[in-house]
Amino acid sequence: MSRVVVEQKVLNENQRIAAELRARFQEAGLLCLNFISAPGSGKTSLLEKTLAAFKEGERVAVLTGDIQTENDARRLQRYGFPARQITTGGTCHLDARMIEKALADWELPELDYLLIENVGNLVCPSSYDLGEAAKIVVMSVTEGEDKPLKYPSIFHKSELCVINKADLLPHLRYDIAMARRNVRQVHPQMEIIEVSCVTGLGLQPWMTWLRERRTAAVAAPAQP
Amino acid sequence: MSRVVVEQKVLNENQRIAAELRARFQEAGLLCLNFISAPGSGKTSLLEKTLAAFKEGERVAVLTGDIQTENDARRLQRYGFPARQITTGGTCHLDARMIEKALADWELPELDYLLIENVGNLVCPSSYDLGEAAKIVVMSVTEGEDKPLKYPSIFHKSELCVINKADLLPHLRYDIAMARRNVRQVHPQMEIIEVSCVTGLGLQPWMTWLRERRTAAVAAPAQP
Repeated sequence: MSRVVVEQKVLNENQRIAAELRARFQEAGLLCLNFISAPGSGKTSLLEKTLAAFKEGERVAVLTGDIQTENDARRLQRYGFPARQITTGGTCHLDARMIEKALADWELPELDYLLIENVGNLVCPSSYDLGEAAKIVVMSVTEGEDKPLKYPSIFHKSELCVINKADLLPHLRYDIAMARRNVRQVHPQMEIIEVSCVTGLGLQPWMTWLRERRTAAVAAPAQP
Repeated sequence: MSRVVVEQKVLNENQRIAAELRARFQEAGLLCLNFISAPGSGKTSLLEKTLAAFKEGERVAVLTGDIQTENDARRLQRYGFPARQITTGGTCHLDARMIEKALADWELPELDYLLIENVGNLVCPSSYDLGEAAKIVVMSVTEGEDKPLKYPSIFHKSELCVINKADLLPHLRYDIAMARRNVRQVHPQMEIIEVSCVTGLGLQPWMTWLRERRTAAVAAPAQP
């Protein structure tokens, strides 16, 4: 069997499990989001600020993927919500079976949000559906304006682009208007929110997006 | 055939071609280096500064890998050395066959250095030998101190770690001593050079490393 045929089989099997997960999330009335970025773009910091901003009564759980360490789950557990590490042991992305396994003893109907932090990688995670309602791509202003053009698949498949570390803009030669144009060139309808986890800029629009997105997800069937 | 078996076949075939390339590079007396980093760590900027710093008579060529665009080759061609883009069309790493093909019409004995910029990805490129004398891992100070622990394979396999964007240190909560400790925890003998492509900090030690490394490569047989 050729490499391409094996890869297609793996992706088909992933898609089957992801569809089951999506149906379970929909039935439970929870919003599942899949956060994807390059290493070091600040996904974990964004999740920390997000968990800190949730109000009493909002029910959230986090799965965080990494090749090797459990650092991120430790960081995220401080906020009082369940957070579990998925250590992939070398694999460059999360897949649907890892999510299914990590969720096994959680009661989904008791959750409003399931936030999944993927492995830091702009390429491979874009091919693996995890049953999420939406993918969110995070890029930081230190990475250059051209990332959407260089990694179009994940920008094409994401519903929202968070531009992180906006506090560093005064110290960089970074043309944020060009970055926005590049995002929209790959994905004309992309929503974009600029954020700084240091100053708090943009966190309010982000939390509004998150809550409205959950309302929409509960009201309407999720799309694969 | 299982996925693991197919992957092993792919890696074995890659290793065979890489060994051939390594022998050709050695015979030609050129130093081949494989630059690996996360997206946006500044590999292309480092290569630009490197090309600008070469003196007349130093013979250099560059191959630069990307999923989609030809932006990087265009940036690098300005310096008067041959630079060729390898567009992988979705593949998350360069492999030895791509290098073999891209080199086909270049006269290797007319080169002193072949610099290969891999696809921006800290995971998958670490598994694919390109016949290089050494891998160089580039990380930027905006990415957090924990990257060596989270992506140990590439830090383990690299000979040199370039810590880039050091000009931004005054604006960040980044503990560079901790970053160095984390590098050395994964790879105790790792050489580390701090660089800023904006201020020029560290470029002189980097060029010295490069020239001494070439002398060593030409004198002694390359290791796989």
